[in-house]
Amino acid sequence: MEFEDKNNEPTQLGELGEFGLIKHLTQNIKLQQPSTVYGVGDDAAIIQPTADHQTLVSTDMLVEGVHFDLLYTPLKHLGYKAVVVNLSDIYAMNGFPKQITVSLAVSNRMSVEALEEFYEGVLLACDFYAVDLVGGDTTSSNSGLVISVTAIGEVANGKAVKRSGAKENDLICVSGDLGGAYMGLQLLEREKRIFEENSQIQPDLGGKDYILERQIKPEARHDIITKLEELGILPTAMMDISDGLSSEILHICESSEVGCALYEEKLPIDPMTVTTAEDFNLDPTVCAMNGGEDYELIFTVPIEDHEKIRGMEGISIIGHITETNTGRMLITKGGTAQPIMAQGWNPILNKNDEE
Amino acid sequence: MEFEDKNNEPTQLGELGEFGLIKHLTQNIKLQQPSTVYGVGDDAAIIQPTADHQTLVSTDMLVEGVHFDLLYTPLKHLGYKAVVVNLSDIYAMNGFPKQITVSLAVSNRMSVEALEEFYEGVLLACDFYAVDLVGGDTTSSNSGLVISVTAIGEVANGKAVKRSGAKENDLICVSGDLGGAYMGLQLLEREKRIFEENSQIQPDLGGKDYILERQIKPEARHDIITKLEELGILPTAMMDISDGLSSEILHICESSEVGCALYEEKLPIDPMTVTTAEDFNLDPTVCAMNGGEDYELIFTVPIEDHEKIRGMEGISIIGHITETNTGRMLITKGGTAQPIMAQGWNPILNKNDEE
Repeated sequence: MEFEDKNNEPTQLGELGEFGLIKHLTQNIKLQQPSTVYGVGDDAAIIQPTADHQTLVSTDMLVEGVHFDLLYTPLKHLGYKAVVVNLSDIYAMNGFPKQITVSLAVSNRMSVEALEEFYEGVLLACDFYAVDLVGGDTTSSNSGLVISVTAIGEVANGKAVKRSGAKENDLICVSGDLGGAYMGLQLLEREKRIFEENSQIQPDLGGKDYILERQIKPEARHDIITKLEELGILPTAMMDISDGLSSEILHICESSEVGCALYEEKLPIDPMTVTTAEDFNLDPTVCAMNGGEDYELIFTVPIEDHEKIRGMEGISIIGHITETNTGRMLITKGGTAQPIMAQGWNPILNKNDEE
Repeated sequence: MEFEDKNNEPTQLGELGEFGLIKHLTQNIKLQQPSTVYGVGDDAAIIQPTADHQTLVSTDMLVEGVHFDLLYTPLKHLGYKAVVVNLSDIYAMNGFPKQITVSLAVSNRMSVEALEEFYEGVLLACDFYAVDLVGGDTTSSNSGLVISVTAIGEVANGKAVKRSGAKENDLICVSGDLGGAYMGLQLLEREKRIFEENSQIQPDLGGKDYILERQIKPEARHDIITKLEELGILPTAMMDISDGLSSEILHICESSEVGCALYEEKLPIDPMTVTTAEDFNLDPTVCAMNGGEDYELIFTVPIEDHEKIRGMEGISIIGHITETNTGRMLITKGGTAQPIMAQGWNPILNKNDEE
């Protein structure tokens, strides 16, 4: 991986005009969802809802310099990730995304080729997750790139899983492993600082592919939703882990009016995350608890589902729901109980996000 | 109306934190649509589609310094307008909006009170148009304010009206009057220049309420959609006029593969728009054809509906659809036919928007 500036002979955005640009960028869209009646090209998209299903809608905004840094984020990956983070919210409701809209505010210094790269990533995600790009808006920006994606999905009536259904004794489960995306970001930020001090030095990211990919090209856990359905497990509460495990479990506890006990020794952390954290003098547990952007799923299931969930590949049971009076605790490897504090990683308005 | 900077003792955004801020801003939301199962507060909103209806989705992005100027746009009006321009797209499909999501990228220099004002406008529009605010995202921005709104609506199966259905001999109709929003903007821009040269001089906008309101607080023509339904008229093609009449009629002709003849003398222009245009040495016809943001509806109906449409208040029949070979023409008051050229007003990437 190299940091580079690849605007050789770029095509100016103004050369195409707004409508020309939109037509150019959306010409390769292939619709694949039967529910998409009409996509890009009119005042609104038309979607045919499936009988006995509810519609899910989720939206996110990504801002250059806040959520991503174009120095080390290839535009194709950025387009892919912008879609994935939205789809993740639909899966987190136990639904399946079907359509997205993508709106962009772009600086005039961005070239048509750069936008093509971005859309390549968007369409790659659409293809992989079988969703249709059905609309959006493209406008100019006086400063950086701003991306707004809205995902529209479906869930069978009565099957939507909110944050609020966790009950005492439910098992708390997470998919995959945690903290990797955060350590990937730390690596990229370190190499960026070195690069800024001396642009002759190319980044040393060798052997770190896994955690870099966790940061730059995350995936949404559609496979978990499919698997849960196959196993006949309906979680009582579910969220995707975008801000960090601490933040998300506190949301679930808050909404469900319950407490929790998480066990440090049960947290799934990849060995590369551990060694990289140690290189940075960071505690891997803190990275797993507070590092965001893993886009794994955290969910709770009734204790009766223990056998089923234990046999499910890629799922860790990390604790259980308690009554609200016992608090929201992390039981450390040493056996002490520490209150969980949210330190949402998501680079937002605040530094002391303690809801 | 006065230009002012009203940040007296503002509350810093960081004081509330992201989740606190969202909770604070969304606490006054009252859901009124039966189809809204669950609104703000989870990974996604849940919507129950109405049987025999299709879902409509439309999205727009508004950027500070490009689409609006905070010097002369009160935040409450901005919130209202951001919603209205999206709802307008749903009505333009012959549907009714039911839900919206609102995402914001806000500079840290904006206060909580400023955001409250913005949301007051958003909720006012929600109340007036009976739509529910069901989601969104709030993040920081390194520069100006960026607003992204997505509207979700419904239309009875088979009743969606696209751009592509206009047929030869159809009548071309517009609601309300045109060019007013553009002249309102010209006034505001002129007074801004004067204010910037000497901030002691307050703007002279007396007696211009109508065109200022057309610019600052436009309305979406839900009443026209209701009326058309009552009269049993199903337009063959329809759009809302956001970029300007020229641009929109060319979209309809392009999509429908037809020509058109518009009559200059039939264009509905308010007397205040005419006199203000003359003050600015502008041709009122040009303002009506190319000035955007009126958010009126342009639609085509079969000639058989002539009697019905003639009796409809607030509708002007401005021309008819022709075969494609005769071109897309404006017949001037002098009787000459001029090809219609799109000069989309919408401040976008291009200066030569000629699709």
